[in-house]
Amino acid sequence: MINFNESQIIENAYYIYKQRSKIEAIADQICKRDFDLLFFTSSGGSMSMLLPFNFWLNYSSGLPTAAMLSADLLITGCNLLTKNSIVFMTSKSGDTQETLEAAQYAKNKGAFIVSAVGAADSPLEAASDAAVIYDAGRPQELIFYLLIGKILYNRGLFPVYPDFADNMKNLGAALMNVRKQADEKCRQYALSCHKEPYNIWVGSGDLWPTAYSYSMCVLEESQWIRTKSVSSPEFFHGTLELLEKDVCVTLLLTEGPTRPLDERVKHFAAKHTNKLTCFDTRDYLLPGIKDEYRPLLSPVVMAAVLQRISKNIEVITGHSLDIRRYYRKGEY
Amino acid sequence: MINFNESQIIENAYYIYKQRSKIEAIADQICKRDFDLLFFTSSGGSMSMLLPFNFWLNYSSGLPTAAMLSADLLITGCNLLTKNSIVFMTSKSGDTQETLEAAQYAKNKGAFIVSAVGAADSPLEAASDAAVIYDAGRPQELIFYLLIGKILYNRGLFPVYPDFADNMKNLGAALMNVRKQADEKCRQYALSCHKEPYNIWVGSGDLWPTAYSYSMCVLEESQWIRTKSVSSPEFFHGTLELLEKDVCVTLLLTEGPTRPLDERVKHFAAKHTNKLTCFDTRDYLLPGIKDEYRPLLSPVVMAAVLQRISKNIEVITGHSLDIRRYYRKGEY
Repeated sequence: MINFNESQIIENAYYIYKQRSKIEAIADQICKRDFDLLFFTSSGGSMSMLLPFNFWLNYSSGLPTAAMLSADLLITGCNLLTKNSIVFMTSKSGDTQETLEAAQYAKNKGAFIVSAVGAADSPLEAASDAAVIYDAGRPQELIFYLLIGKILYNRGLFPVYPDFADNMKNLGAALMNVRKQADEKCRQYALSCHKEPYNIWVGSGDLWPTAYSYSMCVLEESQWIRTKSVSSPEFFHGTLELLEKDVCVTLLLTEGPTRPLDERVKHFAAKHTNKLTCFDTRDYLLPGIKDEYRPLLSPVVMAAVLQRISKNIEVITGHSLDIRRYYRKGEY
Repeated sequence: MINFNESQIIENAYYIYKQRSKIEAIADQICKRDFDLLFFTSSGGSMSMLLPFNFWLNYSSGLPTAAMLSADLLITGCNLLTKNSIVFMTSKSGDTQETLEAAQYAKNKGAFIVSAVGAADSPLEAASDAAVIYDAGRPQELIFYLLIGKILYNRGLFPVYPDFADNMKNLGAALMNVRKQADEKCRQYALSCHKEPYNIWVGSGDLWPTAYSYSMCVLEESQWIRTKSVSSPEFFHGTLELLEKDVCVTLLLTEGPTRPLDERVKHFAAKHTNKLTCFDTRDYLLPGIKDEYRPLLSPVVMAAVLQRISKNIEVITGHSLDIRRYYRKGEY
């Protein structure tokens, strides 16, 4: 396996896990407030990382929750957001302009801002009421599994949280293992997909943000490969008509509640193209993690799988994942 | 101009306008309830038609509002929705399965359901507490301009509503006129775009749903043309990297509040591709409608413009807009 460092993956996950008590204290701090909304905002791939937690809250609790892109928030506002709201944000650099301005918007409203930030001493950390610094820690989602999980637990809505969080100690090793299981399939996929003129990516529920962001932020942004992403239910309201035997379709199947929507796409697409690839989180063992927690973990399992496409494709295409024509080069 | 019937367009708009007092009575009925949420749900193109009204409410009022695809609603629910909520839905056929099931979900919650339905005596009409039948009436949006406008007026948030609604009497003629102004540009666009291997569509705010649905529900579904749609702010989080001098980009510019996000894309894309087409609602006169109402009307103005692509492209490609390979053919 190329570009693969077992101990680094485990160490990076532990970097976040070891902040568990700090993260839980933030959750406790949030729960002491009589909050009226749990609100998620960021941009691009960071927003996609947050959306499954908005999904989890809505699906499994009555806690009011909403999400909006920071760029939209800055122009139109969100009329559900008040001084009693909690705002969750994330940024790797901690200086993404839109995200910082959104933090200022939330601050002006008097909301309580909680951030996950890659870089310590960044402007986003300074603008936040509480911040978790993850540095090289991965997956960043682990911060939110602990944070949102503990909020739900405190409200009596996720009684197994202490055990779930204990399981999270093994997340790094489990996801390292997923990468090993997925590598050969992903390498084969990378060999073929980079030659395709058009790649349709489909997913639903907690994996729709993954389908959206992997196709855009990795294949488009870092490999200049043309994609279209569409959610599993919406696929049937237009995109289905594009299918022919040589049209490349990549479907992400979640173990979350919307899985039947993905299976419907699988059933249809398998009949109408020879180039359907399914990445199904169910195919991967998660050693050290109880089965009952799997339905929550599809986003991080799928991210581990897809990372093996990224690691292989840059070698196959000879196009480093770090090369950009325009992104963050000059003003635009 | 091919496939163009002036009097029919005016007649179709009047078919909806003449139901103004009925629509306003529904708004009054809604306002008598102590509602906690104005909620929009449907699927595909119908959902895209509704989203600008969710956008309008959020932008211009403190009235709580939210939106969710019916397929997602059915599986995950919406925890903001209660027996005190108002649910807005729309379906041309009135028998879209997901939409009907979503109506049942809302009914079970005890919410008040308001529908815009193409076909009289349809299941969706039967499932609704109040329904407006539009038959051949167009644009369907006119129902919601009157409905949402009157709700805002009743709450003291849109005092110019009576005059705005009077202006809506001229909407059909204005949009007929827009079509005439747009036709030649759209015909030229249709001549070139149908040959493109990949079409990036971009828009924001109240026109993001138009960019999303026109590319998917018309170009993909009825012309089998490959597209990618992305919102103007998200364009800069990945898709921008695809631009080269021969990459086809189609940008919709709104007169709504997010226009600066579109102008940023225009400025960038003009530098990096020779195949940028901008459709800008600002380019079209709206006789009989005051300038102050234009910022609300971008979705219907743009729909009138884009319809001229549709009407021309089916003649150019010899591919009728009504031909489907799969959609609503057999089970899937």
